[in-house]
Amino acid sequence: MKKHIVLLPGDGIGQEVMDAARAILEAVSDQFGHSFTYQTADIGGVAVDLHGTPLPEDTVRACKKADAILLGAVGGPKWDQLPSHLRPEKGLLGIRKELGLFANLRPIKGFSQLLHASPLKEEVVKGSDLLIVRELTGGLYFGTPSERSEDGQSVVDTLSYERKEIERIVEKAFQSARLRRKHLTSVDKANVLESSKLWREVVEEKKKDYPDVIVQHLLVDAAAMKLVTNPSQFDVIVTENMFGDILSDEASVLTGSLGMLPSASLREDGVGLYEPVHGSAPDIAGKAVANPLAMILSAALMLRYSFGLEEEACAIEEAVEETLKYGYHTADLHIVDGQRVGTKEMTRLVAEAI
Amino acid sequence: MKKHIVLLPGDGIGQEVMDAARAILEAVSDQFGHSFTYQTADIGGVAVDLHGTPLPEDTVRACKKADAILLGAVGGPKWDQLPSHLRPEKGLLGIRKELGLFANLRPIKGFSQLLHASPLKEEVVKGSDLLIVRELTGGLYFGTPSERSEDGQSVVDTLSYERKEIERIVEKAFQSARLRRKHLTSVDKANVLESSKLWREVVEEKKKDYPDVIVQHLLVDAAAMKLVTNPSQFDVIVTENMFGDILSDEASVLTGSLGMLPSASLREDGVGLYEPVHGSAPDIAGKAVANPLAMILSAALMLRYSFGLEEEACAIEEAVEETLKYGYHTADLHIVDGQRVGTKEMTRLVAEAI
Ligand SMILES: CC(C)[C@H](C(=O)O)[C@@H](O)C(=O)O
Ligand SMILES: CC(C)[C@H](C(=O)O)[C@@H](O)C(=O)O
Repeated sequence: MKKHIVLLPGDGIGQEVMDAARAILEAVSDQFGHSFTYQTADIGGVAVDLHGTPLPEDTVRACKKADAILLGAVGGPKWDQLPSHLRPEKGLLGIRKELGLFANLRPIKGFSQLLHASPLKEEVVKGSDLLIVRELTGGLYFGTPSERSEDGQSVVDTLSYERKEIERIVEKAFQSARLRRKHLTSVDKANVLESSKLWREVVEEKKKDYPDVIVQHLLVDAAAMKLVTNPSQFDVIVTENMFGDILSDEASVLTGSLGMLPSASLREDGVGLYEPVHGSAPDIAGKAVANPLAMILSAALMLRYSFGLEEEACAIEEAVEETLKYGYHTADLHIVDGQRVGTKEMTRLVAEAI
Repeated sequence: MKKHIVLLPGDGIGQEVMDAARAILEAVSDQFGHSFTYQTADIGGVAVDLHGTPLPEDTVRACKKADAILLGAVGGPKWDQLPSHLRPEKGLLGIRKELGLFANLRPIKGFSQLLHASPLKEEVVKGSDLLIVRELTGGLYFGTPSERSEDGQSVVDTLSYERKEIERIVEKAFQSARLRRKHLTSVDKANVLESSKLWREVVEEKKKDYPDVIVQHLLVDAAAMKLVTNPSQFDVIVTENMFGDILSDEASVLTGSLGMLPSASLREDGVGLYEPVHGSAPDIAGKAVANPLAMILSAALMLRYSFGLEEEACAIEEAVEETLKYGYHTADLHIVDGQRVGTKEMTRLVAEAI
């Protein structure tokens, strides 16, 4: 299979973990006989420094021609004081919108070797295996008006949704649930928000097309509680952009494996952008100690969702599990009686295990 | 001291826990020589049933003349299918708005006897003692437009704030921090939302008037993580309405004492509405087993915040702690080697301890 991949390393540890993911993709393409071509482009703070904008035109153009995109991380204290249109995060929001990546998928599953690092009691977190499906290009983060009044005395942001934006993300969630344990929790604030009422209606409508999936509605405040008290009750969670932002980050710390979590942002035709859930970690950038596993697992999601290469995706995931089983870990993790290794060594170990 | 208190028992277990709070207030006023008068009014589902609206005019009128208000709980499956203007929650939103109760204060502290019920590991939750200050009458839950388009194909909600609405809640938070450990965390999404940028500016401005308070800004997604991984790092958290809704519910399950948590909703002049954080628990309503302690502790907050009766408030809080120390608990809790009691017995025990 021939595929063209755009790499957006971004800021902080982005470059290091991207190198790791590329090495693993090379190992996979050698072994399974694929041919991947790569092109690197700038995004985030590094793009601000080099081109005066967090999302250069060239980057957008390159991404539009790609079969899939890998992104490292954006942001850092260096760019924190810039006016908002120059903030590295605008690059991320911009590329999501430009490419129409409306569906953010975040699988969260504990690795048994790392469960001891969970803030939750073992009996609470045990067996947790959930997928958060977050709408990514609508709602409060993109609605207009989003501005201050002329006299500076008031401010407004707008949460707006088209019915069809809700329909496509809800469908995506039903399809995802069908491939898993067939349980879908739709999260909203339907007792207060009009947008949530429409959301709930759409879920009820779509439910008829997926009679094999059990659907539950949950208010966002209750969902924030239940994620902590009973995370294993969830299978697939679907929710709008902002609720998804908050809940997926909350969920990401439950299993003690934040440094291990990948994410996928998809368009209807399968093109997707894949990035680790963790940030750019400027404090450890350049020190060759960053954990590359979330980026490597993001590459696995790319193989699965954008290229349909299920076997290859599983090969990577199993290689990561095996490496952890042998006790190898990076500095952000701890495995009892394990051995600490750097970014490159970890990458080599995973590549060998494939 | 003479004070007039309006009681809004509401739905489910609301009446039972309200009876308990009133009994405790009687015990306090006897002992300390105060004279409290009471008036009961309807709100929520029971008001829908009796008057066709979740917030009758009479109730608003009574509350406007009160020195303080105690509320039990609203809502239940019986009213879940009603059109949105008849939902019990509208009564709650309505009374907050009518009375201008802009500051919601939620103290969250573990009781050592109950910490074992926390979903968090003991070493993670130990020492947690935080206060969430939530803006309660602005933002997305009250902004207009909040409606569906005529063709039903799109929907909008509006997050709007006046600068002075932000100023007064931020001041309240700084004042609260000053009475505690002098650490304030302001939560926003300033990397995306215009309203959050104004919010952050106001916090930076007000900070100059409180040089003794240490201020930290945190993005809402990061806050949702840190509440779980490191709850004891927080002292006072201040945030806007919706973020506060989600984060305060998330925080409420951390210490294993959800049935114990009170809340206060205040106006500038000290008038306030006090209610337990837990809901109406329709499944156990009328069974005389409901835990009255959150309602009783809400009455203590009323004495402190609305009446300035610090000694009396402490007397109630200490009586509750003492009762737990003797091992008495209701069915929702468990204390090792303790004794389970009903609502009335628990109330009697607390009254005796005062
Ligand atoms: C950086 C920020 C704009 C972004 C978001 O909130 O969408 C991030 O928090 C995320 O969750 O991917
Ligand atoms: C019932 C609902 C409208 C209310 C809110 O979200 O404000 C409740 O969840 C709360 O937190 O007091």
